[in-house]
Amino acid sequence: MKLTILGCYSATPRELTNPTSQVIEIKNHMFLIDCGEGTQVQLRKHKVKFNRIKHIFISHLHGDHFFGLAGLISTFRLLTREADLHVYGPKGIKEVITLQMKLADSWTNYQLIFHELTSTESELIFEDDEVEVYTIPLHHRVYTNGFLFKEKEGERKLKIEAVLKNNIDTAYYRKLKQGFDVVNEDGKLISNKLVTKSGKKPLSYAFCSDTAYKEDIVPIIKNVNVLYHESTFLEQHERLAEPTKHSTAKQAATIAKQADVGTLILGHYSTRYDSLKYFKTEAQTIFKNVELAEDGKTFEFN
Amino acid sequence: MKLTILGCYSATPRELTNPTSQVIEIKNHMFLIDCGEGTQVQLRKHKVKFNRIKHIFISHLHGDHFFGLAGLISTFRLLTREADLHVYGPKGIKEVITLQMKLADSWTNYQLIFHELTSTESELIFEDDEVEVYTIPLHHRVYTNGFLFKEKEGERKLKIEAVLKNNIDTAYYRKLKQGFDVVNEDGKLISNKLVTKSGKKPLSYAFCSDTAYKEDIVPIIKNVNVLYHESTFLEQHERLAEPTKHSTAKQAATIAKQADVGTLILGHYSTRYDSLKYFKTEAQTIFKNVELAEDGKTFEFN
Repeated sequence: MKLTILGCYSATPRELTNPTSQVIEIKNHMFLIDCGEGTQVQLRKHKVKFNRIKHIFISHLHGDHFFGLAGLISTFRLLTREADLHVYGPKGIKEVITLQMKLADSWTNYQLIFHELTSTESELIFEDDEVEVYTIPLHHRVYTNGFLFKEKEGERKLKIEAVLKNNIDTAYYRKLKQGFDVVNEDGKLISNKLVTKSGKKPLSYAFCSDTAYKEDIVPIIKNVNVLYHESTFLEQHERLAEPTKHSTAKQAATIAKQADVGTLILGHYSTRYDSLKYFKTEAQTIFKNVELAEDGKTFEFN
Repeated sequence: MKLTILGCYSATPRELTNPTSQVIEIKNHMFLIDCGEGTQVQLRKHKVKFNRIKHIFISHLHGDHFFGLAGLISTFRLLTREADLHVYGPKGIKEVITLQMKLADSWTNYQLIFHELTSTESELIFEDDEVEVYTIPLHHRVYTNGFLFKEKEGERKLKIEAVLKNNIDTAYYRKLKQGFDVVNEDGKLISNKLVTKSGKKPLSYAFCSDTAYKEDIVPIIKNVNVLYHESTFLEQHERLAEPTKHSTAKQAATIAKQADVGTLILGHYSTRYDSLKYFKTEAQTIFKNVELAEDGKTFEFN
């Protein structure tokens, strides 16, 4: 599992700071999360292959999280993309993107499939054999979701000595790895648990931006390996966080602690601060394992 | 008069090439022409003061000419702009921008005034004491206008010897400069032409992008000091220019020659070519005074 931060600043794109966008590689997927202005240039800069992106998740319809989407969709068309593209985002996203296509008289030659979100409860929005994606309802000035990416339980591992001892035909090993009980050479039913153990522990990643401090999300993100939680402000500006429905670094760390996550990554910084180190210092007064997002930085989780 | 090229490439933004946008400074105005994705970053990079922009002219609603507009309007809001902003562009531009504002629940605290264009004849769309702006109807895949920026005739200059000889009170000098006949100290009417001469010759700039080769524009842009004319392709790719409604460098130069312009600036290059010098060489087979637009380049006209 690998996270690439394309942009992690709030509000407006600048020469050296980009609005929100990131790519999470999980199993065979390359999911794009949010798409602020300039995202397609960041994708090129950080050598993300455009055709590997088949799913885009948009948290909310503030410009710094989606003004790059119409351009990216248009660039996919110019690159003669053929693969389907799924876009998950708040209701309205389909109208605004298709209006731009209509005005440009530029329709995609690939299938563009919108999944509009309206629920205020966490819901499963994507699933295949290996991965699940859930929404994380957040509290912001407009309807906003975070996203929880979870690997499914992988194959079980054979306890090879026990397998041999129980006289199981090699033809059944596949079934065992998939968790089934099997009949051995002596016609006896062998319980799966007796001869296998859990496989690699599945990894999980939660993206939570933008949001005010919201404890309701804790059960949803409980024990995730990595939590990206916005920290637009430092505690000294908590008075700004409240009306704008953003969080401070300390609040992000409090959520991380309550959810007992592995690592907290901070991001969505206001550009008013001259250094990011204050965010880390502040968060670490509450929760130890803190990393700072930076444009272009990658995080590998194992 | 000063032109700053913010972006002069076609299609998609890349790390080192930006889609169309430019700023023309004429008299006290700073007009922004087109606004592809990333324009606000280019404005910052090239130190254009955001609050000096009060008029934005959008040629057409293809993404590479206007996907940066919603973000720029939003950034003006974040910068607590108060001055009115006038946006000139094809019908539909108001709907698509206001839809994005509605979805973000982010209305501007300044007046945002749309001037939607629908005419297929050249029309005067802006005028004050010093400057006029006309549309230049172009031929592209969607409704498109170029823009002609013209300084008005300035004040006349006094032929000071003639003024003194004709015994004119200094109180009338202002009137003379404005072109009026005046009565002299002896009560005699003095013809303006007798005692003044033309002032500084007014400058003009024509922006023509995107367009197929279109001779109809020649009378509109006749004798302009500077013509920016798109040249997406070289002649070797004329077969691509025709269906996409773009021009070759040679076609741009042919228009420049017919219109007898001062300088031709080429731009809106396809990124398929490894060097821009081919564009200049090709155009110069038809018309001598050719310059190449490049992102960040400025041109001063006198």
